[in-house]
Amino acid sequence: MNASALDRFLNPKSVAIIGISRRTGPGAYNLMENMLHYGYQGVIFPINPQAGEILGVRAYSTIGEVGRPIDLAVISLPREMVLPQIEACAAAGIPAVIVVSQGFGDADDRGKALQREITAVARKNGIRILGPNTLGVINNFDCFTTSFMPTKREKSPIGMICQSGLFFVGTGNFTEKIGKGIDIGNGCDISFSECLACFGEDPAIEIITIHMEGLDQPKPFFSLASRISRKKPIVLFKTGQSAAGARAAASHSGSMAGHYDLYRTACKKAGILFMENDGRMYDAVHSLLCQPLLQGNRIAVITVTGAGGIMATDALEKNGLQLASLSHRTITALADLSPEWMPLGNPLDIWPAVMKHGMGNVYGQALEAVLTDQGVDGVLCISVALDAQTFPSLDISKSLTTAAAQKNQKPVLAWLYGPGREEMTAKLERGNTISVHRTIEAAAWSLSLLRERQQFLETTPQGRTL
Amino acid sequence: MNASALDRFLNPKSVAIIGISRRTGPGAYNLMENMLHYGYQGVIFPINPQAGEILGVRAYSTIGEVGRPIDLAVISLPREMVLPQIEACAAAGIPAVIVVSQGFGDADDRGKALQREITAVARKNGIRILGPNTLGVINNFDCFTTSFMPTKREKSPIGMICQSGLFFVGTGNFTEKIGKGIDIGNGCDISFSECLACFGEDPAIEIITIHMEGLDQPKPFFSLASRISRKKPIVLFKTGQSAAGARAAASHSGSMAGHYDLYRTACKKAGILFMENDGRMYDAVHSLLCQPLLQGNRIAVITVTGAGGIMATDALEKNGLQLASLSHRTITALADLSPEWMPLGNPLDIWPAVMKHGMGNVYGQALEAVLTDQGVDGVLCISVALDAQTFPSLDISKSLTTAAAQKNQKPVLAWLYGPGREEMTAKLERGNTISVHRTIEAAAWSLSLLRERQQFLETTPQGRTL
Repeated sequence: MNASALDRFLNPKSVAIIGISRRTGPGAYNLMENMLHYGYQGVIFPINPQAGEILGVRAYSTIGEVGRPIDLAVISLPREMVLPQIEACAAAGIPAVIVVSQGFGDADDRGKALQREITAVARKNGIRILGPNTLGVINNFDCFTTSFMPTKREKSPIGMICQSGLFFVGTGNFTEKIGKGIDIGNGCDISFSECLACFGEDPAIEIITIHMEGLDQPKPFFSLASRISRKKPIVLFKTGQSAAGARAAASHSGSMAGHYDLYRTACKKAGILFMENDGRMYDAVHSLLCQPLLQGNRIAVITVTGAGGIMATDALEKNGLQLASLSHRTITALADLSPEWMPLGNPLDIWPAVMKHGMGNVYGQALEAVLTDQGVDGVLCISVALDAQTFPSLDISKSLTTAAAQKNQKPVLAWLYGPGREEMTAKLERGNTISVHRTIEAAAWSLSLLRERQQFLETTPQGRTL
Repeated sequence: MNASALDRFLNPKSVAIIGISRRTGPGAYNLMENMLHYGYQGVIFPINPQAGEILGVRAYSTIGEVGRPIDLAVISLPREMVLPQIEACAAAGIPAVIVVSQGFGDADDRGKALQREITAVARKNGIRILGPNTLGVINNFDCFTTSFMPTKREKSPIGMICQSGLFFVGTGNFTEKIGKGIDIGNGCDISFSECLACFGEDPAIEIITIHMEGLDQPKPFFSLASRISRKKPIVLFKTGQSAAGARAAASHSGSMAGHYDLYRTACKKAGILFMENDGRMYDAVHSLLCQPLLQGNRIAVITVTGAGGIMATDALEKNGLQLASLSHRTITALADLSPEWMPLGNPLDIWPAVMKHGMGNVYGQALEAVLTDQGVDGVLCISVALDAQTFPSLDISKSLTTAAAQKNQKPVLAWLYGPGREEMTAKLERGNTISVHRTIEAAAWSLSLLRERQQFLETTPQGRTL
């Protein structure tokens, strides 16, 4: 299957929704309602023998009754009713089917047998299946989704391949910035490798994120990944790490979790950025999205709190990074702003200077100084964020984003504290030049990720490309 | 010094503010303005030779001019001007002084010498000093603060002892729920041990949190801590972990950071809960504040996402906990609600049941079932949180808090995903029966912390108490 075949799933011209309910509104989880609300511009054929129309769209009793070309069918029916519908899709010449229903490979022996049957029928008829047990797809570039849960509609260059709808809904965790997403569910037919190849070739996608419970055919996947990872970062979160977790994965998506350590090793070798827990993907995506890679391991810390500077020092060292030795020029620039008694170094504690000259005047200058310092490869900024209305003088977002925008390809990551945190985070991230992280440890880890990626690109022979 | 002596700092009847500016409003960081705004009910004597009055309060030229009893003086002047003011405080019979000013042990040799001098003068005159280099205190129970930065005013039973104002302002990180806080700054006189003893005896304080850069006299501190930790949990975040971090600590508060591993060992022995990074204190305080301790290591996971259940399984195992074997009664209760094909176990994936019966109907019943299951010691709940206006049927906050309120002394921790996360977190935490964590890993770690505390209390002989 090539990328254009997956296009039928991600950007179909026409969709039949088999088993769509007339129930709409809050709590109905009506996927057609969600699809319309999402702004889908193609043709929808609701299939429901009891309804003349649904949400103002003419409904059909059977898929055979439609009599027009259909790119994609979405089936959401009790499991026993799915197989006959796949046969009907075959008869109607539909090339692509999403099976939303649960109770297949994720369930009992009967479910596993049913999954084998639908897969066999699909293969025989040249139909491709996504699922079962899936929310299907999101494509924010073409306003299309098959999710019955609400999702965020950002045209972000992030592709997500996952085995759970959790990631489609997961605002505030993981990657809330999904531009295109494919939930492979139980993965009876369409696999990680196919989706990876698709996003690898898609010019709209710059970062590929993966949530993986298990992999049927590791070898082709890792071989493909090692080619794609030279072009685009691949961020992977493997679950089912523990023995108990592996058993749970078997009963969720029917996946064989395999040995976690082998996965980690294979990922590292293929240049895949490997996430060790459920908090990491957020930081990986935030930093990769708007930061250049880290060319060396010398970090400057600018802080308005000495205590925060110490925490940053600890966190950088834990993550294999070093405090940069700041140049005489940088130190002098800051010494001119600071009281004479202030010992200046790295971490660069600018609070005494801020008390003399104001936050806006000092923070931007400090950032500019370290960004032009040749001994500095990246910057970690620590700042207080008070409420911007009451404390306008503390709003450093403008001076920071201005300085960061002129940067010499050095990453600038930040950690903020104080009640105005959310507001200032939004301002800082708007320009896509500074990423803000939830803990100092997470910011330091993200810098190490930008270094890991750079080192992979430096040390891996270019070899074959896609 | 006994606890009542620290009372002069935390709850003075009268305060002189030496070096207070006439400048007020946003950006002025006027600590007197902040004190008034905070609702302080005692008497304030601003000392400023140039001002007749400040914010409507009569100002005095010198401290000697006041002629009335003063419990506490707060000095915020350039460092060279501090020593004469301490002498003036001695002459005026003031027993307690907070030195806000920087540039002492945190700075150059001159600063270190000045710090020795003010300490000597204070000792000679029986004056106690908090600082230098401190925001001073917060006491939300008596509406008093000396902080020039805005702070949150929650009457929470959390005492904070720290070496940075960062923790006073740190909403959204660390402990945003400080009820009383003491920033010991450079700690030239008032020490961690004294503050610990004070909070140990204070009936308003149930949990003691500590941010420590270094400790001059470890032995008495750990000896005291091992007594207090039998009564109240002590949560400690030690910074200056790395060699570079230790150097940074020396130039921040003049502290000797010492060997991190020795600190960790001493803390564990004294029953102090030891935080390994800057994200942990948030989870520790959130879980300890409203959760009973964990009596065994058998955890039930209730989830609306199979993928989340697997992540929870991984995270629990990493943190030394086990999945509980659910009783026949629990499984039957859920089987009655689920489709027949649904394999039920732990993690308890209730989504298929939710699709049949609605979220509100199922989640509360599931929680009640596992809370009354004798094979379960604690519960980790995973739920989607959509916007409550549009998806009222998904708002499980009421059924969860009701079930948790009837619990048999078992902790209930939660992780939420989706755009309604913040809103539902607030609802769930309002009742102080469920704590919500930012990642599944953090929720699992918090459960292990509740277990660690329980095991410490079980295995430590009661011995002497406070």
